[in-house]
Amino acid sequence: MPVGTQGTIKGILPEILPPSGTQIVLANTYHLMLRPGEKVVAALGDLHGMMAWPGPILTDSGGFQVFSLSDLSRMDDDGVHFKSHIDGAAVELTPARSMQVQNDLGADIIMCLDDCPPADAPPDRAAAAVERTLRWAARCKESHARPADQALFAIVQGGTDAALREHCLHELTGMDFAGYALGGLAVGEGFAAMKQVLDEFAPALPADRPRYLMGVGYPRDIVAAVCAGIDMFDCVLPTRNGRNALAFTTAGPIRLRNARFTADSGPIEADCTCPACRKFSRGAIRHFFFADEMLGPVLVSLHNVWFYQRLMCDIRRAIANGAMADFAANDPRSRLGPCE
Amino acid sequence: MPVGTQGTIKGILPEILPPSGTQIVLANTYHLMLRPGEKVVAALGDLHGMMAWPGPILTDSGGFQVFSLSDLSRMDDDGVHFKSHIDGAAVELTPARSMQVQNDLGADIIMCLDDCPPADAPPDRAAAAVERTLRWAARCKESHARPADQALFAIVQGGTDAALREHCLHELTGMDFAGYALGGLAVGEGFAAMKQVLDEFAPALPADRPRYLMGVGYPRDIVAAVCAGIDMFDCVLPTRNGRNALAFTTAGPIRLRNARFTADSGPIEADCTCPACRKFSRGAIRHFFFADEMLGPVLVSLHNVWFYQRLMCDIRRAIANGAMADFAANDPRSRLGPCE
Repeated sequence: MPVGTQGTIKGILPEILPPSGTQIVLANTYHLMLRPGEKVVAALGDLHGMMAWPGPILTDSGGFQVFSLSDLSRMDDDGVHFKSHIDGAAVELTPARSMQVQNDLGADIIMCLDDCPPADAPPDRAAAAVERTLRWAARCKESHARPADQALFAIVQGGTDAALREHCLHELTGMDFAGYALGGLAVGEGFAAMKQVLDEFAPALPADRPRYLMGVGYPRDIVAAVCAGIDMFDCVLPTRNGRNALAFTTAGPIRLRNARFTADSGPIEADCTCPACRKFSRGAIRHFFFADEMLGPVLVSLHNVWFYQRLMCDIRRAIANGAMADFAANDPRSRLGPCE
Repeated sequence: MPVGTQGTIKGILPEILPPSGTQIVLANTYHLMLRPGEKVVAALGDLHGMMAWPGPILTDSGGFQVFSLSDLSRMDDDGVHFKSHIDGAAVELTPARSMQVQNDLGADIIMCLDDCPPADAPPDRAAAAVERTLRWAARCKESHARPADQALFAIVQGGTDAALREHCLHELTGMDFAGYALGGLAVGEGFAAMKQVLDEFAPALPADRPRYLMGVGYPRDIVAAVCAGIDMFDCVLPTRNGRNALAFTTAGPIRLRNARFTADSGPIEADCTCPACRKFSRGAIRHFFFADEMLGPVLVSLHNVWFYQRLMCDIRRAIANGAMADFAANDPRSRLGPCE
């Protein structure tokens, strides 16, 4: 899922996205509840109308951004109390409020509010977070007002503690959600620790429900997670890196501000069918970045979204052909991790 | 002609432009010679390749921006000597250099370097500018290295002084250029003074060559100029205003940051077929501006380009139907001037 934090995938007209293979996009509840507000979004034809994206949309619960962006003033069993990063207004996010906001935003898949502690949280904090996540999941399910229209997913917490994960997973699956996410990963625990949790717990998630790994990741992470059984991903890397002139390619990332691309008349990637590679040279894109032209960020974002969607398309084909293990072992994209 | 100053119409993928009716775009020699440099543009497949715009392109001479943007250090009969607004480098722009740069940029229509004094220049300065414009036009014609590929247009100067205009026009038409522009208008002389020059001198330009009014303007100005016999226009207003959330409509401009559009689910203009109006609401666009999302400027720029191109399309039809006088008298767009 490309990420449309504030109701737009930054710089990209949604009508040009379908050929990339994009089937569903993500938007952020935290940002949209603060601006323009969920009631305004509802009046504009809900997120589908406002974004001009008639396809499926997923919204997160808002909790993660409260922790990462706002001035968090208090957290208790009711919810989180914080100050808006936009105007400092005091705002409360409870399980019921997260559901009401997501009901108004109108996404097709919505997420339970969870308690996601940092990777290095002490054991008692990690255990308390799991219990709170379970209580909040129950409250979210009760207060979800549009269960016929919107699939509610729960989030399995527990960090890297196997017993906690097991407990959380067992309790949540007993509550019968429409889908399940593994949360509390890609929050600083490192690739090896994440992979261990994935290999142990992704297969334990119900096989007849979508399995979603939130906020991940590099191609390497996605391939490893798919091998463990994950179905869905969201990540800002394609667009955020695109805005910074970093383009993903099968041979590794390239930084288009580099002087060696000044008069390079070739495309970012030779076999890519994205709107940037079909028409624009590396040299032109480099110029657009140096000239502060919007088209630079737009073009590299488009390329990166196409790159990621082609990866997912190739992964789906490998699975259908029973060749996913071979793909993970041999496709060069399986080794693309964080850029040095 | 929509304006692509630095080799891109700001924020707009060229592949989505053709349905607007756009047939030709403009790029600025001054900006491109400084960055990325005309040799780099040539290496990237000239302007057509770099911009990914295979259709016709026009470049100006560079002179106008030297006056308006650079630190002008000296002007003499050889040319203009200035410091780049990017890095302060000393640069010289002569008639021969303007031709060489435009030959390398590779536009389909290129312009003679001219001397364009301000509207309030004293009579002797205005007269000297005309003589210099004539000498430079001759030098441009001599040094133009690709006359078979690139049509060279001359620029008629003379301000609002009828005798000077007449003299300049007479001398230039005797030199047999591929097209003629009226320059030195829309530089502060006011609508009435501009219209008087247009009514007197546009009909005097050769009827078998394109007649171009540079840097104009509001719909009112364009309609008046067409009535006087002008064929071609370029203007930054559609995109510059679009980036500032000002949308042109037949009923007058609207400012999309206005609070009354907050929950407005209607399009900018009901009968518009642009990518913004087909899919996005005023409320969504307003939100994108407040959220600093690129899509806000992109969408309103698209709308304004479509608005201007529809105006030109309707003007062409009115001319073909012998109904241009009626159009000028009765179409509400004929009264759209600067916003109060």
